Amino acid sequence: MIKAGIVGGTGYTGVELLRLLVVHPEVEVVAITSRSEAGRPVSEVYESLRGHLDLSFSEPDIERLSECDLVFFATPNGTAMKMAPALLEAGVKVIDLAADFRLQDTALWEQWYGMPHACPDILAEAVYGLPELNRDRIREARLVANPGCYPTASALGLLPLVEAGVVDSGSLVADCKSGVSGAGRSANAAMLMGEVGESFKAYAVPGHRHLPEIRQTLGWVSDAPVGLTFVPHLLPMIRGIHATLYARLTGEADLQALFEARYRDEPFVDVMPPGAHPETRSVRGVNQCRIAVHRPQQGDTVVVLSVIDNLTKGAAGQAVQNMNLMFGLDERMGLEQVALSP
Amino acid sequence: MIKAGIVGGTGYTGVELLRLLVVHPEVEVVAITSRSEAGRPVSEVYESLRGHLDLSFSEPDIERLSECDLVFFATPNGTAMKMAPALLEAGVKVIDLAADFRLQDTALWEQWYGMPHACPDILAEAVYGLPELNRDRIREARLVANPGCYPTASALGLLPLVEAGVVDSGSLVADCKSGVSGAGRSANAAMLMGEVGESFKAYAVPGHRHLPEIRQTLGWVSDAPVGLTFVPHLLPMIRGIHATLYARLTGEADLQALFEARYRDEPFVDVMPPGAHPETRSVRGVNQCRIAVHRPQQGDTVVVLSVIDNLTKGAAGQAVQNMNLMFGLDERMGLEQVALSP
Amino acid sequence: MIKAGIVGGTGYTGVELLRLLVVHPEVEVVAITSRSEAGRPVSEVYESLRGHLDLSFSEPDIERLSECDLVFFATPNGTAMKMAPALLEAGVKVIDLAADFRLQDTALWEQWYGMPHACPDILAEAVYGLPELNRDRIREARLVANPGCYPTASALGLLPLVEAGVVDSGSLVADCKSGVSGAGRSANAAMLMGEVGESFKAYAVPGHRHLPEIRQTLGWVSDAPVGLTFVPHLLPMIRGIHATLYARLTGEADLQALFEARYRDEPFVDVMPPGAHPETRSVRGVNQCRIAVHRPQQGDTVVVLSVIDNLTKGAAGQAVQNMNLMFGLDERMGLEQVALSP
Amino acid sequence: MIKAGIVGGTGYTGVELLRLLVVHPEVEVVAITSRSEAGRPVSEVYESLRGHLDLSFSEPDIERLSECDLVFFATPNGTAMKMAPALLEAGVKVIDLAADFRLQDTALWEQWYGMPHACPDILAEAVYGLPELNRDRIREARLVANPGCYPTASALGLLPLVEAGVVDSGSLVADCKSGVSGAGRSANAAMLMGEVGESFKAYAVPGHRHLPEIRQTLGWVSDAPVGLTFVPHLLPMIRGIHATLYARLTGEADLQALFEARYRDEPFVDVMPPGAHPETRSVRGVNQCRIAVHRPQQGDTVVVLSVIDNLTKGAAGQAVQNMNLMFGLDERMGLEQVALSP
Repeated sequence: MIKAGIVGGTGYTGVELLRLLVVHPEVEVVAITSRSEAGRPVSEVYESLRGHLDLSFSEPDIERLSECDLVFFATPNGTAMKMAPALLEAGVKVIDLAADFRLQDTALWEQWYGMPHACPDILAEAVYGLPELNRDRIREARLVANPGCYPTASALGLLPLVEAGVVDSGSLVADCKSGVSGAGRSANAAMLMGEVGESFKAYAVPGHRHLPEIRQTLGWVSDAPVGLTFVPHLLPMIRGIHATLYARLTGEADLQALFEARYRDEPFVDVMPPGAHPETRSVRGVNQCRIAVHRPQQGDTVVVLSVIDNLTKGAAGQAVQNMNLMFGLDERMGLEQVALSP
Repeated sequence: MIKAGIVGGTGYTGVELLRLLVVHPEVEVVAITSRSEAGRPVSEVYESLRGHLDLSFSEPDIERLSECDLVFFATPNGTAMKMAPALLEAGVKVIDLAADFRLQDTALWEQWYGMPHACPDILAEAVYGLPELNRDRIREARLVANPGCYPTASALGLLPLVEAGVVDSGSLVADCKSGVSGAGRSANAAMLMGEVGESFKAYAVPGHRHLPEIRQTLGWVSDAPVGLTFVPHLLPMIRGIHATLYARLTGEADLQALFEARYRDEPFVDVMPPGAHPETRSVRGVNQCRIAVHRPQQGDTVVVLSVIDNLTKGAAGQAVQNMNLMFGLDERMGLEQVALSP
Repeated sequence: MIKAGIVGGTGYTGVELLRLLVVHPEVEVVAITSRSEAGRPVSEVYESLRGHLDLSFSEPDIERLSECDLVFFATPNGTAMKMAPALLEAGVKVIDLAADFRLQDTALWEQWYGMPHACPDILAEAVYGLPELNRDRIREARLVANPGCYPTASALGLLPLVEAGVVDSGSLVADCKSGVSGAGRSANAAMLMGEVGESFKAYAVPGHRHLPEIRQTLGWVSDAPVGLTFVPHLLPMIRGIHATLYARLTGEADLQALFEARYRDEPFVDVMPPGAHPETRSVRGVNQCRIAVHRPQQGDTVVVLSVIDNLTKGAAGQAVQNMNLMFGLDERMGLEQVALSP
Repeated sequence: MIKAGIVGGTGYTGVELLRLLVVHPEVEVVAITSRSEAGRPVSEVYESLRGHLDLSFSEPDIERLSECDLVFFATPNGTAMKMAPALLEAGVKVIDLAADFRLQDTALWEQWYGMPHACPDILAEAVYGLPELNRDRIREARLVANPGCYPTASALGLLPLVEAGVVDSGSLVADCKSGVSGAGRSANAAMLMGEVGESFKAYAVPGHRHLPEIRQTLGWVSDAPVGLTFVPHLLPMIRGIHATLYARLTGEADLQALFEARYRDEPFVDVMPPGAHPETRSVRGVNQCRIAVHRPQQGDTVVVLSVIDNLTKGAAGQAVQNMNLMFGLDERMGLEQVALSP
């Protein structure tokens, strides 16, 4: 059994991790920290966990966490980078669900996140936890940077095109839509149901932190510089991301065959039949990405539709997938539920 | 392995059964019938089942269904009563998720359902599938009438009070609210999102078919005649029932202790601490009923709050619970997921 | 033209008042105060008001407000009672949309609101602003206590029964459901869409501040003591209240005729035909209460269904109706829009 | 007073027209037709109109409609083209809210709508009812083709760029999202709340009928051929369209100034300040388009955000605006409400 700890267990990513871990056959959750809720039973904060978990929140304490085999950080940006060095030194593996280790370029990270990085040396060894790209390196990693939600949906949709070099990687567009759970669980008047229910809007058009992350991923597999316009939008629903991706074809290609070949052996990427339009609800609560590829009117624009659950394949589910790889387990263990539909 | 068939697999109850059965360790789904979709792969109709089930809808055919150990009916009212006799004779066990076998009084059934009953003799042997009331009889049953969604939430909330005789059973009120999935998946302009989204209303106040069903259940455990006012409402959300139950106290009672004692050994009924207000989302997608009992202002009115997921504990989950009992399995098998929250 | 001021204009009640007042033919809004947004154009905070209002928020200042003919308080409880005396003395009329002047019994008020009342003498002259009950007194009032949202829906539904003495006023039940806008616009993690979307729950069952208010209203018209169980619930939608009201009949009565007679001349109460089930969306954005009365199964329980928009007839619309009365205008002026449906 | 008739009054466009017309100071609605509801009072079908309209649905009858000054068609495609010729001959003006007269190229129309056009000669005189483009021609028109919802939002967002010739009009992208009311009010299992609530998807990516309509509009003002990729999506909400529009800049331009100059005198187009992100709720129920223009990261891609209410500026509101123009009234008459927010 893997002894797992969670730092920052009171947000949506934390409770989603708990939902998956308490039924995982090879994991025992031994510590969940929260400064604000320390001492309070977890199932008091999360009614849904009543009867499933007999554990209370504790103060974040390096010594206690050092007894874990693995620690997940489900914290705001800037926390994991302060605690990870000590944990790694103690032999604990780390998966950060926040952004501290996502960008390999320290200067770029500091520019987008507005603070100095606490451990640039450790950043250098972090593996970007997108198994469909980095599976072998994740297996060997001590420290995994779990990808962002938009970057997961966008990268999985664009990778086959960019890797194959069949599109102009300098003029990509990612028009992305996310449910409100992506904004987290802290008190914020802008995310009240009275503000975001029955309405829709774009946000952060001038620049969003997931832009450099997607660009980095695509840059790893592209021969040419990556130019990307990324526009996130807020959906009046709780879970789900839909990325609508546009790219200009630069040559002929059997797009359907290209996507099917790229993801043939991937347990968590489902390439749908030609003409399909994946729905976000088809992946609600599961660690799955569904993709459809279109070429409208046989023109030179490819349209890729890519859906995930932002809290599962876009966060906690992918973290469990990474954990399975890091500990030599079957990658699918604990992740084979069926989406809740309707 | 139990070989299971589902008749009428294209509605919400059908897909919910599939969601639970495809991951159940002791069940193999061998047949799913649908006249309208015969020949079409199930995962084409239900995107969420892609990769989980390699089966196509077939015509409802007694011979083929007779090879099952168990057949679930997820059909409109009036179908199961026509096919059940032949299946029972062939040695197949039957669970009807519709209403054909719910009311023991044939005349009452015919009055509320507006058609003659096709097999009153078989009706007599049907067991009402509320495990918290009829566990031992369900274990021995060939034919189980799976309870309605409102009746499950209402009966579980009122049973402790009526059994103990501490309330006036002649003046009960059940003010119930259900998500729209309770109305099924057939084309119906009244259930369009444009009609029911962002709005709320009562319906069927003059009389709803679940009224005699709840009255029957309470009548089994009451010394006095049961008088019940039942008002269902439609919630602008998909899953979940909340029953707010009102009863007049006729004597002193430690209500919290009464409920805790009644459900101490029940795996799927959770009595919450004093002062709690259960949320429907805390049982989303799980076979659970959460209950809180209040006595506002220390007056003589008891208020019980009881929540379930109408498709799970209110339909398919309870059917799986009944199946487990009928086949001698651990009652909880395949039903231990954590609710999807948020 | 009435020169109107609004104190506390940044909440939902404030913006709803503005929506109604900027198109009212006899009102000019001359001041809107907000400590937090002072100096900022109103239309910057409320995109919907762009092009309709050229005014900035100002600091709450008695001197400036004294130039108004009427000041609305759309503030948290406890604010109006501090400023109203000075305004009244300056000859300004006051309508408080919060609770400071709703309960005539000062001790009761202090018990439920947990603070000493700042001006009990002025409280004594405040008129409870339910026009259907107090129209003539409102016409003469300097200070109107605008009713709460639940109390408006509940009182209008129960008044005909209690006034006529045909029900047992000692055992009334008000099972009420409200959209989330009733909880206001301040940052509160419990009201995030991720917390309240797609879910439903009761709250404050042990006691809610609207309980004594409803009891007070019914007490004014009842011969016997009023006993009321009031259970509020939170709906996963933005606007609308549905009160489901239960009362025990004590004699024979033509209920439909009783309601129609009571509200025959009321411009803002619509008694629906027998058998109807009003929807909250039918009053979305309008100053209307729709009511249907039922007697299920011809038993001795009356069920009244009463719907309003909590922000309009339950708050700002009723305030404008009261203003019209206080200033001798046609009661319907500025309030004749059609509900937004769908 | 304009005597107005509505053919096909039972859909969402019909009830929205009624909502606006019953409070319009210069209109009297004298006929509303519906084959299915003939004889039934309109306010029985639309609870929201109770007390506002004393009219029953009638059979569609040319003779009766010929007494109108103006007839609106709120019918499925293919109906208006059969009745319009007779009405025009009788001197009645016509506004078609469906698509029968939107495409000037008959062959193109027949290809996209899959039926022969009933009156190509009359099609030739129809004026495309986008006042911001065709105001003067609308003033003189007998027959107006009211634009589609997506085309209104998309064209208003792209017109300034294409007219000024500052973008490559051969590679435009319109990523559009619509609330479910756009799909109408007929029974359709795919639009049940259980199907479309809490989910999001694209549809009709291979080709949607609004594609040639948007292309036609932009073609009128472009020097070069128009190439457009149009992807519509379905939002889990009722009202609102958000068009996110992408274009490649071909030269330098002060985009903000360009948009402000283009729409300076337009009463129903609001160009927001730099950096803004319009919300659909800010135009809920009103005849308004709000636009923001961005140039992310100072790259060569322009992003325009354009929001409307699909039933108002995208249908019935624009029809009333066109009516005002056709009858020489103030263009804004009856259209100056404030959006319902929250």
